[in-house]
Amino acid sequence: MEALNGLLSLDQDMVREGDVREGEVIVDMPPARDAGLVFIGRIRTPWKSRLETPRQGRQDGPVCKLEIFEPWVPAIKGVDFYENLEVIYWLHQSRRDMVLQSPKNNQKTRGTFSLRSPVRPNPIGTSIVKFVKIEGNCILVRGLDCLDETPLLDVKPDRCEFTPLAPPQAGDFETE
Amino acid sequence: MEALNGLLSLDQDMVREGDVREGEVIVDMPPARDAGLVFIGRIRTPWKSRLETPRQGRQDGPVCKLEIFEPWVPAIKGVDFYENLEVIYWLHQSRRDMVLQSPKNNQKTRGTFSLRSPVRPNPIGTSIVKFVKIEGNCILVRGLDCLDETPLLDVKPDRCEFTPLAPPQAGDFETE
Repeated sequence: MEALNGLLSLDQDMVREGDVREGEVIVDMPPARDAGLVFIGRIRTPWKSRLETPRQGRQDGPVCKLEIFEPWVPAIKGVDFYENLEVIYWLHQSRRDMVLQSPKNNQKTRGTFSLRSPVRPNPIGTSIVKFVKIEGNCILVRGLDCLDETPLLDVKPDRCEFTPLAPPQAGDFETE
Repeated sequence: MEALNGLLSLDQDMVREGDVREGEVIVDMPPARDAGLVFIGRIRTPWKSRLETPRQGRQDGPVCKLEIFEPWVPAIKGVDFYENLEVIYWLHQSRRDMVLQSPKNNQKTRGTFSLRSPVRPNPIGTSIVKFVKIEGNCILVRGLDCLDETPLLDVKPDRCEFTPLAPPQAGDFETE
């Protein structure tokens, strides 16, 4: 509890609200027009502010809801076959133009591709979650760490649990 | 070898080239304009056709190259700290309007969200790969299963290996 109280009293500077810290490097962001996304749903979580969201989801965390929009609802069929799902979503509040970041705000920097920070050229979040149940057009899961109302991009079985149904191809047997 | 020869002699119908099979359901695809992507690089693999690509990558598979474009090259800094990386890419040859699919082409269908098929509303592929080395603007890895020239969207440390550098937040302690 002491740890938790300590956290709650920390001020804004632990949260990246579009600021640039010492040592961080931003670039001229090219126009993001190489491909277009469609939001297939919306994620409902208990976290309304970036000050509250977990850094990493936990599989005993609260149940969250993946609301699927039409015309994609029929695509839910069969997800209950899996214990673990991969959820892909759009980190809609993140800036996209940073190549070096200082997560500890201590002048030391790391490249964006060596961090799981939401700040990245294509702010796509991926999580492995526990399937709980299907309820109408919603998939209930545990293990997310994103803001309430986060736009949903995709849901698929966890790669570890999934065996392709389609027949194998030559590349499946290639080693080096 | 017999298995491999058998595979190579299989005809086109094992590969989805935009066809719709019995029982499969397509929908009116809404315009994909909710968010825009920037291709940050290009993936070089040995597989030039969808007839050859593995269904799933293997960690003893051939070394593949993630070519990073400017202005993102500095963001590579620090990826060599990790043994495993998550690679996110754009499955540029996939149709996007299918909600029920028949991977075995046997009239039985499954929802798109219960498959790891490349055919999905947002054709985003994710793989966990073994880091090999950095070479100039390229990251060399093993374990991919995508076509040569696949557009690259993101690279991040594997979630299992990554400990957030930023301080924890209240949500990290929430259970139910």
